[in-house]
Amino acid sequence: MLPIPFLVLLLSSILSPSSAADFCAADLSLPTNPAGFSCKKTSTVSISDFVFSGLGAPGNTNNIVKAAVTPAFTSQFPGLNGLGLSLARLDLDIGGVIPLHTHPAASEVLLVIQGSIEAGFISSSSSVYYKTLNKGDTMVFPQGLLHFQVQSGSTPAVAFATFNSPDPGLQITSLSLFGSSLPSQLVEKVTFLDDAQVKKLKKVLGGSG
Amino acid sequence: MLPIPFLVLLLSSILSPSSAADFCAADLSLPTNPAGFSCKKTSTVSISDFVFSGLGAPGNTNNIVKAAVTPAFTSQFPGLNGLGLSLARLDLDIGGVIPLHTHPAASEVLLVIQGSIEAGFISSSSSVYYKTLNKGDTMVFPQGLLHFQVQSGSTPAVAFATFNSPDPGLQITSLSLFGSSLPSQLVEKVTFLDDAQVKKLKKVLGGSG
Amino acid sequence: MLPIPFLVLLLSSILSPSSAADFCAADLSLPTNPAGFSCKKTSTVSISDFVFSGLGAPGNTNNIVKAAVTPAFTSQFPGLNGLGLSLARLDLDIGGVIPLHTHPAASEVLLVIQGSIEAGFISSSSSVYYKTLNKGDTMVFPQGLLHFQVQSGSTPAVAFATFNSPDPGLQITSLSLFGSSLPSQLVEKVTFLDDAQVKKLKKVLGGSG
Amino acid sequence: MLPIPFLVLLLSSILSPSSAADFCAADLSLPTNPAGFSCKKTSTVSISDFVFSGLGAPGNTNNIVKAAVTPAFTSQFPGLNGLGLSLARLDLDIGGVIPLHTHPAASEVLLVIQGSIEAGFISSSSSVYYKTLNKGDTMVFPQGLLHFQVQSGSTPAVAFATFNSPDPGLQITSLSLFGSSLPSQLVEKVTFLDDAQVKKLKKVLGGSG
Amino acid sequence: MLPIPFLVLLLSSILSPSSAADFCAADLSLPTNPAGFSCKKTSTVSISDFVFSGLGAPGNTNNIVKAAVTPAFTSQFPGLNGLGLSLARLDLDIGGVIPLHTHPAASEVLLVIQGSIEAGFISSSSSVYYKTLNKGDTMVFPQGLLHFQVQSGSTPAVAFATFNSPDPGLQITSLSLFGSSLPSQLVEKVTFLDDAQVKKLKKVLGGSG
Amino acid sequence: MLPIPFLVLLLSSILSPSSAADFCAADLSLPTNPAGFSCKKTSTVSISDFVFSGLGAPGNTNNIVKAAVTPAFTSQFPGLNGLGLSLARLDLDIGGVIPLHTHPAASEVLLVIQGSIEAGFISSSSSVYYKTLNKGDTMVFPQGLLHFQVQSGSTPAVAFATFNSPDPGLQITSLSLFGSSLPSQLVEKVTFLDDAQVKKLKKVLGGSG
Repeated sequence: MLPIPFLVLLLSSILSPSSAADFCAADLSLPTNPAGFSCKKTSTVSISDFVFSGLGAPGNTNNIVKAAVTPAFTSQFPGLNGLGLSLARLDLDIGGVIPLHTHPAASEVLLVIQGSIEAGFISSSSSVYYKTLNKGDTMVFPQGLLHFQVQSGSTPAVAFATFNSPDPGLQITSLSLFGSSLPSQLVEKVTFLDDAQVKKLKKVLGGSG
Repeated sequence: MLPIPFLVLLLSSILSPSSAADFCAADLSLPTNPAGFSCKKTSTVSISDFVFSGLGAPGNTNNIVKAAVTPAFTSQFPGLNGLGLSLARLDLDIGGVIPLHTHPAASEVLLVIQGSIEAGFISSSSSVYYKTLNKGDTMVFPQGLLHFQVQSGSTPAVAFATFNSPDPGLQITSLSLFGSSLPSQLVEKVTFLDDAQVKKLKKVLGGSG
Repeated sequence: MLPIPFLVLLLSSILSPSSAADFCAADLSLPTNPAGFSCKKTSTVSISDFVFSGLGAPGNTNNIVKAAVTPAFTSQFPGLNGLGLSLARLDLDIGGVIPLHTHPAASEVLLVIQGSIEAGFISSSSSVYYKTLNKGDTMVFPQGLLHFQVQSGSTPAVAFATFNSPDPGLQITSLSLFGSSLPSQLVEKVTFLDDAQVKKLKKVLGGSG
Repeated sequence: MLPIPFLVLLLSSILSPSSAADFCAADLSLPTNPAGFSCKKTSTVSISDFVFSGLGAPGNTNNIVKAAVTPAFTSQFPGLNGLGLSLARLDLDIGGVIPLHTHPAASEVLLVIQGSIEAGFISSSSSVYYKTLNKGDTMVFPQGLLHFQVQSGSTPAVAFATFNSPDPGLQITSLSLFGSSLPSQLVEKVTFLDDAQVKKLKKVLGGSG
Repeated sequence: MLPIPFLVLLLSSILSPSSAADFCAADLSLPTNPAGFSCKKTSTVSISDFVFSGLGAPGNTNNIVKAAVTPAFTSQFPGLNGLGLSLARLDLDIGGVIPLHTHPAASEVLLVIQGSIEAGFISSSSSVYYKTLNKGDTMVFPQGLLHFQVQSGSTPAVAFATFNSPDPGLQITSLSLFGSSLPSQLVEKVTFLDDAQVKKLKKVLGGSG
Repeated sequence: MLPIPFLVLLLSSILSPSSAADFCAADLSLPTNPAGFSCKKTSTVSISDFVFSGLGAPGNTNNIVKAAVTPAFTSQFPGLNGLGLSLARLDLDIGGVIPLHTHPAASEVLLVIQGSIEAGFISSSSSVYYKTLNKGDTMVFPQGLLHFQVQSGSTPAVAFATFNSPDPGLQITSLSLFGSSLPSQLVEKVTFLDDAQVKKLKKVLGGSG
């Protein structure tokens, strides 16, 4: 029988070119393209690219929505690049609200870990699907549809959202309308909202125009 | 030299199985799945599956938005099934508005054919990109982002929207909020809108709850 | 001004064909195809298709691996069909092990909710990436690569796995080798394992041949 | 109530990483890859990346095919990069012809804006689907299949083609055969055309060999 | 230690729903859709779905092109359904030619097993890439581009073509032009070919009109 | 009639931007990303990017598995980049074995060119599909599933494997377990193998820990 290194040499010649297929930890310093970030050289990749500990601590809910969203997207978690997945942690204090929003680039599954959350989405045909979710419940929100999460019951709530994209995007409807520079007159035309309502919320949410 | 039919026989044996790859005109009577509709048998497919004439006539703009959207999606145009494309015609009378909306499943390119249209979209980071488009101008609206089109100038406008999906979906923000059964209290919580505003628009747009 | 129903009629004519783009809750009674299950008719879809409560209760770990995996794939959670996401709950008692396995059709992110788990994966080039994860830690396992999870520390552990496919598959290496009908002689040839080892484990794991 | 900046800070921390998901306007100066061009930095993106006015003017039809094709692909319209869509304008003078061609990377929908066009495609099994299209008619040409457009009737024609790729490609059959360096002998072998015919057209279309 | 069946029960509850992710052998009796054929029930799938022996025998080259193409697409090889691969065998007698053609739905790699083949493709920009391939050589033909294979040297040639689609399609240019019902006048307009040439080849290849 | 160059100019203005859609020969010197390598400039691409001759010679089977795998992946064959295909040559001497392995990123079709090979795969539900393949037989191995190839009969065997990815990856189970740095105690926990067996194979296959 021949010495073993022959096998190792044989195999390593095959395996080195194919390692790109395994993973592509993001090199956050290079330009992105439609497929995501460029890959770090495999020799510089370590376990720290594949483990992210930032979702263990609650976010700061000391704000007007009494809620916090802590993302684990590619920028925070480089190992996700190219793998089609990401997460976020939701903390909702009593009265907390994740305002109406969409993820342009991903579907979402929400998993409630603590407390209760009233969650729902609206379909293109204006059908509404909503329910109060308790600990252990999961709910799916199809890609691109308007949805929301509201704390329910007498204790704060914690949930984790998972997305089928490493960069799902997040467009909060009221922030887009009232926290942007879209002129009030245009906002009113395209939403049917009253001028007073638009101007009041622009002040609250920091919009201009 | 041998008779020609040998070639034809040879080739037809190859080509019959592969015709599925060419196209898949929708059989609208069968259940759909995530890839679209089932394919009609090739023997029943004709040129009428691949040509649609419904965009030639203006839509009826005699309504509160003074606008009409005429779709050419798979249901109207079965030849689009599986091919990753669809269209719609927009008619905007003086003062016409296509209210703020998203397409959950497609990016859009708008092409102005007549008149002028003020069009824009809002990004996830609340940046606003908008411009008055004139005849011959095109504008792209990235998938899932909020956008709008408003007639501008002194003549009615006509435009065509193209989508990179045979069923792009269409979610009109104000209709989702005020034309659905989402309870007013929830609408207010997730949008910061005032109770009076929500109830006023629910009456206008037919919402309940 | 014209009555409102004109707007609703206008819009509903657009929205009905596009609802297929929103979601496709699985009709589990019809044949599948490579894109998943056929869609239920929208009129029969309800909130119960989009909410799944089966992950709230711990699985039964009273077995040889002292572990349980509770899936929330399309068969359990029809609303996931076509949306590119699924979940599973992992319960690991003291000494619990999720044996070495792959998911042929998905990448995975693991989120530890309780206790500690030693988790790792092996790359194509036989590099090993592993770490002890604590509550709140997340780790990504790239698609198709061998990986494992082992309870660590002095308390049972609970974790949730998320996948970027509604049907990720699960191939447990030792079950494939020793719980199948693959003849022992073939198992030995393709793994270098000793005959005695293979026959011993075939008895334990129920294999034949 | 707490000051508003808390909300803005909360949200901006989420939104900055996700903006890559919204769009990826092409940086035409960097190398491409199979997913397209690299993205410009968001801070340098403006409305001019998303609006293209080059389709407003007729192309120059003063040539042997009495036709002009004006593209709006990524190179002309950087905002299309990664969004899966592009357009082109077709001008056909009396007698104008867009010669037989394929788009290797996209399906096409043609929309006639002025005049009449006889358009058709040929399937893999040599079935022919063609029709004279009038103003407002649309026709779909499945990806990769041979198709053509010929001016019809007594007025020049204008049409817009839309593609489900930002770079659909365009292979004109006669130009590939008679305008390239493929040796005449090879052309004849693979097409059954006569030597005299091939050499005549090579002179007309600029081929060599 | 607990009895083994607990493990098997635990695992089988996970594995049964996920088996759809493994493969989807085609049920050729049901309608197709854009994702391919419906899947046979797993209980009726056997090794015969995954093995195809039809490429072992040479095709009949006793025809005008002195060549034969034997396909192994989904219709012949049901196990390929949904897996993104197919093959074909090419037999080229002395003087044999696979005429100029495209595969609308797949890229191809050709592998020469016996003899020599002059093979090439033409790009969208009319660049020509061709070479005489010998036994063991491989060549790639990008999706949708015109290409050809011609026997070379003094012995018959055998090659295998592999495609990244289970149904790549095959459009032979001369058969599309001269073996279809496309009227001669239209053929001439869209190719610049002479009337005599078109009519001569229509007779040879069986076209009408 | 106008001079021809008008046509050529017209067309070249269209064709230059679209050439990116045709192919993307890998520039192996630039970083990769999830879509593959960056494209060489078209002006530097030649026929040598599209032809690879490295599969013509047998691999060296003078090793412990009496087998050799010669890859034609992107690193060896730059023209494959972005086109979704690759190949490998398998040489199996008498007694040769390609040990149990998976390709995380591709399905495979095997084509036997010489001799006989016993080949098989195991599904997620531990069903085994295997058969002795003879010259001309093909077998498909679904993405990510464990499979193997063993020489059979009295002559050496040669086969070609094709993959629907330019970088399919290759994870050999025994090399992952016994040729890596995964600690023996962990290997034993996650596979049920005995300590003596693991340590024996670690010595043979070069593992540590």
